Amino acid sequence: MADKPVSGAGLRGQSAGTTALCTVGQTGSGLTYRGFDIKELADKAKFEEVAYLLLKGKLPTQAELDAYVAKLKGMRGLPQALKTVLEQIPKDAHPMDVMRTGASMLGNLETEESFDEQQDVSDRLLAVLPSIICYWYRFSHDGVRIETETDDASVGGHFLHMLRGEPASELHARVMNVSLILYAEHEFNASTFTARVCASTLSDMHSCVTGAIGSLRGPLHGGANEAAMAMIENWQSPDEAESKIMGMLERKDKIMGFGHAIYRESDPRNAIIKHWSKKLSEDVGDSVLYPVSERVEEVMWREKKLFCNADFFHASAYYFMDIPTKLFTPIFVCSRVTGWCAHVFEQRANNRIIRPSADYVGPEKSEWVPIEQRD
Amino acid sequence: MADKPVSGAGLRGQSAGTTALCTVGQTGSGLTYRGFDIKELADKAKFEEVAYLLLKGKLPTQAELDAYVAKLKGMRGLPQALKTVLEQIPKDAHPMDVMRTGASMLGNLETEESFDEQQDVSDRLLAVLPSIICYWYRFSHDGVRIETETDDASVGGHFLHMLRGEPASELHARVMNVSLILYAEHEFNASTFTARVCASTLSDMHSCVTGAIGSLRGPLHGGANEAAMAMIENWQSPDEAESKIMGMLERKDKIMGFGHAIYRESDPRNAIIKHWSKKLSEDVGDSVLYPVSERVEEVMWREKKLFCNADFFHASAYYFMDIPTKLFTPIFVCSRVTGWCAHVFEQRANNRIIRPSADYVGPEKSEWVPIEQRD
Repeated sequence: MADKPVSGAGLRGQSAGTTALCTVGQTGSGLTYRGFDIKELADKAKFEEVAYLLLKGKLPTQAELDAYVAKLKGMRGLPQALKTVLEQIPKDAHPMDVMRTGASMLGNLETEESFDEQQDVSDRLLAVLPSIICYWYRFSHDGVRIETETDDASVGGHFLHMLRGEPASELHARVMNVSLILYAEHEFNASTFTARVCASTLSDMHSCVTGAIGSLRGPLHGGANEAAMAMIENWQSPDEAESKIMGMLERKDKIMGFGHAIYRESDPRNAIIKHWSKKLSEDVGDSVLYPVSERVEEVMWREKKLFCNADFFHASAYYFMDIPTKLFTPIFVCSRVTGWCAHVFEQRANNRIIRPSADYVGPEKSEWVPIEQRD
Repeated sequence: MADKPVSGAGLRGQSAGTTALCTVGQTGSGLTYRGFDIKELADKAKFEEVAYLLLKGKLPTQAELDAYVAKLKGMRGLPQALKTVLEQIPKDAHPMDVMRTGASMLGNLETEESFDEQQDVSDRLLAVLPSIICYWYRFSHDGVRIETETDDASVGGHFLHMLRGEPASELHARVMNVSLILYAEHEFNASTFTARVCASTLSDMHSCVTGAIGSLRGPLHGGANEAAMAMIENWQSPDEAESKIMGMLERKDKIMGFGHAIYRESDPRNAIIKHWSKKLSEDVGDSVLYPVSERVEEVMWREKKLFCNADFFHASAYYFMDIPTKLFTPIFVCSRVTGWCAHVFEQRANNRIIRPSADYVGPEKSEWVPIEQRD
């Protein structure tokens, strides 16, 4: 069927379009957003500044950033109908199902009627996704209806404030800022590609983001930081971690948080979040989880030449900030929505419907047999 | 970035995997589902039989079909929480947003916890999607809370019964049956491909189907039958249609319902639905819409060598059955969910995460400028 068969499955190494947003793993440039090195952004930028860079195409001036932060702050409220929907979702639901449903419901209430609205719709999603997950979490787990319109300047601070009911410390707000920057954009990963396939039918932004959330939910994608946490939280010492990892490797168990579809030697995001995980570890006086994480990193490299990806030290970092494990992937959503929306803009600006072919491996011709003669 | 650049955009002609479900446009075989010709299926099969073929891999015996129909009938009820959600969605919402939200909400209430449940989860979606759209439609438009657990044997009859409050005629149930068969499966179209990309992260079935609904919503994909209707309903005679079409062609307006990404000479589904549209036209005593549709078909072929795809005569067929235009694409969902789920099974059975590359067209290196020095 296909004119040009793929050698590797999963479209690996196949170009599915063009982008000016991000380079992943290109020799010499590691990870960049619109040409800016991820290390420099994580060190110097605010997440809202990076969101602006991705969505509007350039770094903002101070006046532009101030206006943007104020705009986002003004968009944190939840419509009553959306609150009612979130209140119908049970406590034991998968939080990514909550995010997906919240984004989808918003599309009913604030439909993107024209692509002229795409910037505002994207800003609204960026501003309101933390409200969606925290409103549901606090209602279903603590029985309270929280106020989502806080005065926090940053997305990360807003998230922690809603989750805990009190403003975040400077250190925590700083780490959330870095984390959101690291997760904001990553080229044609599976969730972003989902958003672009959806966008290529000229569907609306809420459909694109809803679909992307569903893909990010998968354990091979966004679920990796939660899976890493579930693994390392059981181990009481580096030595125990080493022996358990060796056993897992022997049984060929999948170990989450390592390796990458594109990076070959290292994930440039790892050193950054590892640095902050260490800081948090010192801040809380941890003597277990960080050393355990370091040992796992060491063993995986020694035994398999597999490096930590962005997810692995995110697990301990979030843990040190007392974030429930089940909310790790939703935080990823709150960040990556910037990349998704920016990719949708690109797809719309130069669109052809994404409709690949398949290699047919079924029967050539099946003979119809009347139902009474079948067995 | 990409090792093997694509000549055409949109992955056209690129294989993105294997399938045993369907051939589209292969020389000599037109459209087949698991090797069965679409013409034979539309002529001889029940839609539930085709759903069984796609989802379980073979045509059912009479006993298997009876059991399957009974199973689906037993799965039409809506949980109270889902009803409450649907009641929050305003009358003027896009019905595909309602479908997307309904499927997503269901995932919170009946989460697929393991892939062992995939058959039951798919059957449930197949059974309940008509209930979702009709419950919302009747509640928001007519102010009634309908009973979705009807005794109708067929999915198509169930849909029409809920929509109208009375059982469908034999002719209408028959046409719905054919229509649902024609729309059930179509290889790696954009919505199915969305479902497979999502599945490739090992996400759950509700995420895959929710994402697919979002893609089908796009006017370049599932929205075509509604767009065709919006066009032809304005014309009072074949001559008027011809002059309007000629004007649209001159202005290079996009005319929906014609041509196809894969088919080159004709869409084998067109002759089938056209036949039934004609029957319905005679049944209602129409002397305008069917002749108008025929003339449009004639002019498009004469002027542009563009043939009707499955969507074009679906518009008039649904119209003759008094189905509101805004529900055309949701019916497509009620059918295509079988193909989506069957593709998810295939993807899961032989998975590699679908993660293509992109051609980078952005700046090579951007210099960080402190915010106070930007302009």
